[in-house]
Amino acid sequence: MTDVLEDRGLATAEDRFRAAKAASTRLATATAIERNRGLEAIADALLARSAEVIAANADDLAAARASGLSDGLVDRLTLDERRIAALADAVLAIVRLPDPVGDVVRGSTLPNGLQLTQVRVPFGVIGAIYEARPNVTVDITALALKSGNAVVLRGGTAAQHSNAALVAVIQDALASTGLPAGAVQTVDEFGRDGANALMRARGLVDLLVPRGSAGLIKAVVEGSTVPVIETGAGVVHVFLDESADVEMAVSIVLNAKTHRVAVCNAAETLLVHAAAAERLLPPVAAALQEAGVVLHADERTRAIVPDLEIASDDDWAAEYYSLDLAVAVVDDLDAAMGHIAAWSTHHTEAIVTESVRSAERFLAEVDSAVVMVNASTRFTDGGEFGFGAEVGISTQKLHARGPMGLSELTSTKWLVRGTGQIRA
Amino acid sequence: MTDVLEDRGLATAEDRFRAAKAASTRLATATAIERNRGLEAIADALLARSAEVIAANADDLAAARASGLSDGLVDRLTLDERRIAALADAVLAIVRLPDPVGDVVRGSTLPNGLQLTQVRVPFGVIGAIYEARPNVTVDITALALKSGNAVVLRGGTAAQHSNAALVAVIQDALASTGLPAGAVQTVDEFGRDGANALMRARGLVDLLVPRGSAGLIKAVVEGSTVPVIETGAGVVHVFLDESADVEMAVSIVLNAKTHRVAVCNAAETLLVHAAAAERLLPPVAAALQEAGVVLHADERTRAIVPDLEIASDDDWAAEYYSLDLAVAVVDDLDAAMGHIAAWSTHHTEAIVTESVRSAERFLAEVDSAVVMVNASTRFTDGGEFGFGAEVGISTQKLHARGPMGLSELTSTKWLVRGTGQIRA
Repeated sequence: MTDVLEDRGLATAEDRFRAAKAASTRLATATAIERNRGLEAIADALLARSAEVIAANADDLAAARASGLSDGLVDRLTLDERRIAALADAVLAIVRLPDPVGDVVRGSTLPNGLQLTQVRVPFGVIGAIYEARPNVTVDITALALKSGNAVVLRGGTAAQHSNAALVAVIQDALASTGLPAGAVQTVDEFGRDGANALMRARGLVDLLVPRGSAGLIKAVVEGSTVPVIETGAGVVHVFLDESADVEMAVSIVLNAKTHRVAVCNAAETLLVHAAAAERLLPPVAAALQEAGVVLHADERTRAIVPDLEIASDDDWAAEYYSLDLAVAVVDDLDAAMGHIAAWSTHHTEAIVTESVRSAERFLAEVDSAVVMVNASTRFTDGGEFGFGAEVGISTQKLHARGPMGLSELTSTKWLVRGTGQIRA
Repeated sequence: MTDVLEDRGLATAEDRFRAAKAASTRLATATAIERNRGLEAIADALLARSAEVIAANADDLAAARASGLSDGLVDRLTLDERRIAALADAVLAIVRLPDPVGDVVRGSTLPNGLQLTQVRVPFGVIGAIYEARPNVTVDITALALKSGNAVVLRGGTAAQHSNAALVAVIQDALASTGLPAGAVQTVDEFGRDGANALMRARGLVDLLVPRGSAGLIKAVVEGSTVPVIETGAGVVHVFLDESADVEMAVSIVLNAKTHRVAVCNAAETLLVHAAAAERLLPPVAAALQEAGVVLHADERTRAIVPDLEIASDDDWAAEYYSLDLAVAVVDDLDAAMGHIAAWSTHHTEAIVTESVRSAERFLAEVDSAVVMVNASTRFTDGGEFGFGAEVGISTQKLHARGPMGLSELTSTKWLVRGTGQIRA
């Protein structure tokens, strides 16, 4: 695949950024029908050329096994007929979503007759840096194209052959519908240099979306001059208020912790109001333990529920991604919000309470992307919120916060229509 | 002033970021009435303590003159009774603007009954890095407080005494109304270290707004790990299409270039369609020259209007901020848009045309924050757009693009209200 790209004269990472930028101007004026046709062609081509992709994937898998990659990471890397079919389906699901490009955000007619319209436009070129998961290659490409953007991918050296094969399939499919093949680029084969070039490509790349571990995201945030949307890390808290209903508390904590553990919206810390701890902790702990959850508890919790692991600061900071939960008894609502302010990653926090006063204070004062009353934290999700696509969950405050839909992959532009107006 | 701050135990830049962060949680839950009272107290205190501010300003002015600062920069640095009264009036004008905090952006009720509401919330702490203009100290502080944010200011060493006096007045005024004095901090006396610390204060400072020269903005963008909103630089183009009305062309070009020259929305380059150059250029050039504008022209323009300066690439890139204008004849609309894509800073571009086809292509294809048909580029302005305040004009695509109102100084938060919902 490398040869194919080099044959096209895109020998450096910067060449590819320029090619993506050039393609982005064509994409930005393509109609939704044209972009959807391109995506449908991609879905078709993934199925038609799956053998080619699987063969390339086999090269990556052989190298991964030889280098002793863990079974979990090898599984994430693996593509087979079934998974490729699922990727094609996911592309078609994105085709069916409403198109954000050209949406009118607001507008007005000024006293002098000037007509102002603020419309959604594509960013231009979106960069993505992620780990060795070839499904992300297809997913982020489809989301970018649907929102009118070109994309430059840097997907982890361990998936290099798979990604190159996928990108070749995608480029050919785009070209077959008259869209520019250059709209999808990869810089995988440049290794770390490719990632570094992508992070410094301000002016050619308009937005960078890191997806993966907290370490990867931090490295991108700190090393990038291109604007970044930070996604992911969730040290998610559930607080059981003094008035919490015990059945609701058990149900929400159990769901938030055990429904799916290796996701960012799973609960990682449980806080319990001291005045209700003796009432709530025993049934909640019993339900969690029955579900296989290991509790890492402070002394006040251990005084009520015996034989628990002792929690340290590492537990309050932990995004376990496993059947582990940190538990603390806190004096009151203020102490709970203080703990959250100290340890939260500002993703999602929930309170279980019957008190409208506690509920409204929690909603107003907790500084997280999503703040919930009497609901499982697992609802922080683009699909659950009705956005259709899962672009990611932003934990930053600029541009997008919380679950991101396709519209978060767009910028805006002001259109001003006049009849010769000048300023007096 | 430095002593006062050190007495409060805020000896390092990071201490001040932490103080601002602590104050921001109180500000975020203050009502609009409380925040407006704080701003009114600031306006009153500026008038009541103007002598103190003018005395501190005199120290800066003496140092500035001793160091040979230019008359223009000394003028920008100068505060007197009249200017302080204007600052107090500007604060009161901000009080009268609609409050963005708590605005509902969107919401829905999910099929399971969960109620979702996305509301505007303050960012938390806004950092500002700007040049030696003490009026910006008051302006950015008032805008930040109005939108519920604390602020950390780094305002140029040449204005250090003035800024310290202004911040002391502001802090005391806030405290007198029960709002936290710590909501307004300065790191001026730490010099370049203070600016560097501010740029790396991710987690304590939520947003950084550089205001000033292109060089200052570039340094902040490249050196900052805190999210930045890039404002300002405008290499603004006006394109006279083949069908342009000559009177409208003269009127718009003259207004865009000469109405006010040292502003980012003033025209810097004029492009003229080759097929209309002989018809349009002589009257447009005559009007500009009569207004004292020096034209820097390409060969095709010089073939029609004699005795003009020869333009080089420096002219196509120039943000003159003066009575100078670069002029080129281009083959057609595509060539005009090509020139714009190559040289624009993506701030504002305008076309003068009678052709709906040219107008719509220009609006769709030019990738700038504001794109205009038959109007002066001088309308790109928060005040003209009806936003009331002039927070700045964003030339980036993330979060805010074009004129920024108070709502662009807010983030959002999702509030989720349930009755015990869990995910199936």
